[in-house]
Amino acid sequence: MLDAVATSDDVQALMLDIGSRAKAAARPLAIATTEQKNRALHAMAQAILDSTDVILAANAVDVENGRASGLTGSFMDRLTLDPGRVAAIARGIRDIAELKDPVGEVIAAWERPNGLKIERVRTPLGIIGVIYESRPNVTADAGALCLKAGNAVILRGGSDSVHSSRAIHACLVKGLEKADLPTDAIQLVPVTDRAAVGAMLTGLGGAIDVIVPRGGKSLVARVQSEARVPVFAHLEGLCHVYVDRSADLEMAKKVVLNSKMRRTGICGAAETLLIDRAAVGTHLAPILEALAQAGCELRASPEVQAVFPEAKSATEEDWRTEYLDAVIAVTLVDGVDGAIGHIAKYSSNHTEAILAEDLTAVERFFNEVDSAILLHNASTQFADGGEFGMGAEIGIATGKMHARGPVGVEQLTSFKYRVHGAGQVRP
Amino acid sequence: MLDAVATSDDVQALMLDIGSRAKAAARPLAIATTEQKNRALHAMAQAILDSTDVILAANAVDVENGRASGLTGSFMDRLTLDPGRVAAIARGIRDIAELKDPVGEVIAAWERPNGLKIERVRTPLGIIGVIYESRPNVTADAGALCLKAGNAVILRGGSDSVHSSRAIHACLVKGLEKADLPTDAIQLVPVTDRAAVGAMLTGLGGAIDVIVPRGGKSLVARVQSEARVPVFAHLEGLCHVYVDRSADLEMAKKVVLNSKMRRTGICGAAETLLIDRAAVGTHLAPILEALAQAGCELRASPEVQAVFPEAKSATEEDWRTEYLDAVIAVTLVDGVDGAIGHIAKYSSNHTEAILAEDLTAVERFFNEVDSAILLHNASTQFADGGEFGMGAEIGIATGKMHARGPVGVEQLTSFKYRVHGAGQVRP
Repeated sequence: MLDAVATSDDVQALMLDIGSRAKAAARPLAIATTEQKNRALHAMAQAILDSTDVILAANAVDVENGRASGLTGSFMDRLTLDPGRVAAIARGIRDIAELKDPVGEVIAAWERPNGLKIERVRTPLGIIGVIYESRPNVTADAGALCLKAGNAVILRGGSDSVHSSRAIHACLVKGLEKADLPTDAIQLVPVTDRAAVGAMLTGLGGAIDVIVPRGGKSLVARVQSEARVPVFAHLEGLCHVYVDRSADLEMAKKVVLNSKMRRTGICGAAETLLIDRAAVGTHLAPILEALAQAGCELRASPEVQAVFPEAKSATEEDWRTEYLDAVIAVTLVDGVDGAIGHIAKYSSNHTEAILAEDLTAVERFFNEVDSAILLHNASTQFADGGEFGMGAEIGIATGKMHARGPVGVEQLTSFKYRVHGAGQVRP
Repeated sequence: MLDAVATSDDVQALMLDIGSRAKAAARPLAIATTEQKNRALHAMAQAILDSTDVILAANAVDVENGRASGLTGSFMDRLTLDPGRVAAIARGIRDIAELKDPVGEVIAAWERPNGLKIERVRTPLGIIGVIYESRPNVTADAGALCLKAGNAVILRGGSDSVHSSRAIHACLVKGLEKADLPTDAIQLVPVTDRAAVGAMLTGLGGAIDVIVPRGGKSLVARVQSEARVPVFAHLEGLCHVYVDRSADLEMAKKVVLNSKMRRTGICGAAETLLIDRAAVGTHLAPILEALAQAGCELRASPEVQAVFPEAKSATEEDWRTEYLDAVIAVTLVDGVDGAIGHIAKYSSNHTEAILAEDLTAVERFFNEVDSAILLHNASTQFADGGEFGMGAEIGIATGKMHARGPVGVEQLTSFKYRVHGAGQVRP
């Protein structure tokens, strides 16, 4: 592998070569059997377990470099592997092997009056480009998930985890070899040059079908603004919980608390709480009390502060902020209509919840809010492919094209039509 | 309406305003009822019939201008309306009203072990941009189809049909008014400036979700290369018919003839004929004879010419040419493997057919050829949304994202997840 490349022309040539190799690998991969793909996945998991020492040694180099360059706590936490985390990576790959193979699945079938039998059948998408930051486990997760759907993948990991990613990637390649699949099916970009990312975003001469960024907001923003190929991503999860006048108070307290505080750093965490003006006397104080007691900072509109003076003042900026922290913005709205209006104005179209017993209000919320995931009487933290029963996910998409919500193995497929006839010609 | 705009800044401002209006219209449109949308469609059809004289008078101006600027026969034919064609436009809109409303359809539903009930439900895509050449009927077809799926649409027709398109568009607006739908739901770009197309291709500041080009190869090529938003299109339909050694000869003659000669100018017309080398003695001459007798020019490889000397010599360019005319390229291949290889190299991934009785060969062809539509023992000319039973189509897509094959009302939708709970929180 190359550790450094002299010129940007070299990077360009290297990346185009990676694109060509992926294209060559994609065809045999698309017709690989389920058994063959699963054999590769199990062999990858075994290779990772067998290489635990090698992976940990490589990771130690990344960790040492990270410490030397002054990386922060949560970043270092994501970067650092231990035997338990390596075992979890292997287990994740075996879980992907257990998923149903989407390729070849007949999604729809019908017969025409002229006797033509039409089937819509899932196919691989082709070639996925995954651009991620310094979580070494993404190398394995993304590689395995793309393989399961019959796609070739080009992985571009963060420079901070380069040694760990290479050690893990070597195990994936061993798995491919054991199943006689092309080793170029899962390629790891061997240079840390940022020009490599730029090249991927142009699609490598038509090689890349879709880009999936995994990382912080600045990475996703760059990918979304520069990519000339489709992107599956969400820029942020500015999730709302609306408490209707009809909400069961105990349930509302429990669900709001979980939506905000279970884990504050995930994209499905609630960021804004909307309370029905008609529920000010009944629901507002107990819910805010529960949040405050759990250590959540409240940033509220004047009307909310009038009832709950402990809350700080919210500014316009608060309605637009994904805190990813123990902070929530709170305001009153005029019933479900007001909630729909507020969400239409401020939401990132990721996930929103309504807490209500009035099913008419729920139906309006479900029909009129245009976000990927809408929940009724359940925590926003269920916005997750695993919780949806899809198995592993490569991320959550807020776009409307092709994949929306959790992006699992099924969302990494396309389809084609197969038509069986008996000599029909068109009149 | 503006007929001319002074500067490109003016065009830019005008187009951004159109984008904002479409956005404002999209929300009420997305929650319009089926009844309301159908009421609008029927009112549009009626308005078109009632305005036949006005439409024909406007069309006469376009036809006169076209004649004066020396437009060609087939172009003039597509441009020219008569009372029958106007009635057909109205009938087309009524047919779209009859289609099932895709919005709100539950595509999938399942329950999780924790009791969460998850549904995947169709929603409108949002805002469609349609860029087309001088077929005035596209104004009505595209406007009606987008409306049925709850989408706002921005139509940019060719300058040669501007008067006809405006007269038809006025009828669509009347229909929207009668159903109390926002009149900005179907906007016709009021300027013929080419900068308007450029503005649409950038997405009008995030307003446009997808662009559909309708027209010749140069239009589609420009849209595909310049668009910064997703595109539903096919650049060309370089369709192949493969005749296997196991093919029934009489059926093969009939299907090849129909695939090539029924209409030579449509994207589903066959352009290359691949004949199994093992069928040279049995199938080759009778099939080529039938084509020649029907007036089709044959461009063949030397091996084919050895058996059928009347054929002209094919060059490498012929395997890459979409003739859209009574011409076909013919070569031999080594069975289904050879056919798959040739198609992988030259196809535009639109539509391919295999003529065979050997179902093993058919299965390999269906699994390994990566085109939007694959047919067994049926004419390639069935590559059409209407023939698939989808009703009207806005075009055929060869991309792999979101829509592939015929793009009908269902393909103009996205989806969201609706999750019903009973107070579940995530552990």
